[in-house]
Amino acid sequence: MARRLEFFFFIGSTYSYLSVSRAAGLAQAGGVDLAWRPFSVRTLMREQNNSPFVGKPAKMRYMWRDLERRATRFGIAFDGPPPYPIDPGELANRVATLAALEGWCPQFTQAAYRAWFIGKQDPGQPEAVRSILGALGQDADRCLAGANAAAVHEAYAAQTDRARELGIFGSPTFVHGTEIFWGDDRLEDALAWVDEHDGTRDR
Amino acid sequence: MARRLEFFFFIGSTYSYLSVSRAAGLAQAGGVDLAWRPFSVRTLMREQNNSPFVGKPAKMRYMWRDLERRATRFGIAFDGPPPYPIDPGELANRVATLAALEGWCPQFTQAAYRAWFIGKQDPGQPEAVRSILGALGQDADRCLAGANAAAVHEAYAAQTDRARELGIFGSPTFVHGTEIFWGDDRLEDALAWVDEHDGTRDR
Repeated sequence: MARRLEFFFFIGSTYSYLSVSRAAGLAQAGGVDLAWRPFSVRTLMREQNNSPFVGKPAKMRYMWRDLERRATRFGIAFDGPPPYPIDPGELANRVATLAALEGWCPQFTQAAYRAWFIGKQDPGQPEAVRSILGALGQDADRCLAGANAAAVHEAYAAQTDRARELGIFGSPTFVHGTEIFWGDDRLEDALAWVDEHDGTRDR
Repeated sequence: MARRLEFFFFIGSTYSYLSVSRAAGLAQAGGVDLAWRPFSVRTLMREQNNSPFVGKPAKMRYMWRDLERRATRFGIAFDGPPPYPIDPGELANRVATLAALEGWCPQFTQAAYRAWFIGKQDPGQPEAVRSILGALGQDADRCLAGANAAAVHEAYAAQTDRARELGIFGSPTFVHGTEIFWGDDRLEDALAWVDEHDGTRDR
């Protein structure tokens, strides 16, 4: 199997901010190809009756504090909780899907998370996504039309179907073959798994 | 503040097996006193509408696989999923509470987890708990009478109240002052926090 890790994520997942910020660098340092896979964790969570934070104030408070501590540990900017939840129409995630088809998914997703966590904007709002796309040198009209077209809706649904078949229930999830690793705190385990099962970089 | 970490746990929490197996050794190596705190996470989960696995088959399947991988990584015995859920009357947890009052909580809890994960027994069943107590040289009749007495019920409820006030929602949770760290995968973060805030061992 290739030295590849699939990175399933949903723009709107809070802990995914850590992975969006650090997974590419760690994968590159380990000689692992990282494949970015936007999917609708919201669809799966609804199907699976899995609501991690909404209606659970103690767990929600902890999540923000833990995220802050982990961000500090990793040297990732954190400036208090951003708006939550976001992207009600999953527009940002469909733009990420278009970007994945076209090869600029990491750039878009990282910019969307910066806009969300640092800019305190919902990157699923059309004005916000236009601004993010403009800063990346993308044609916002073309991208929004693409994100709303059937082909992207279908690609997004297909990736969500794959996630369901793999047994995924949360974001981020790292996948190598059929082995899944849930949570930013399993990123190192997932990269070690690739080493253990497909050779180290220098082999 | 003292170089102390409180270890809140519930016998019946699956991931707590990892912490019950490794927290004492890591704390000792780091010069940190570990205070074992049995509490009723079940009471808090019910109050908080937080059911992590029951009714969530994808998440449950993942949990057992992840637990197996983590146990392997840490060199902890794992022989497939044990019975789950266990301890319906919370008897094992009340024996652990008695043991905490008397100073033999780590020994009892480690033995209860071995009986559960390796022996595939529910340590909350009276015959199982008698056998565990006997192997530890404890008088089973005395301990069961103690675990069923009002004083232990009250101490267990008081520890659960403290957990609620600290914002705890799951097991294991490590506590230093008012800072809480949830999950076996935060044990290293919690020990590092003690170092960062109360000096390293050699200082």
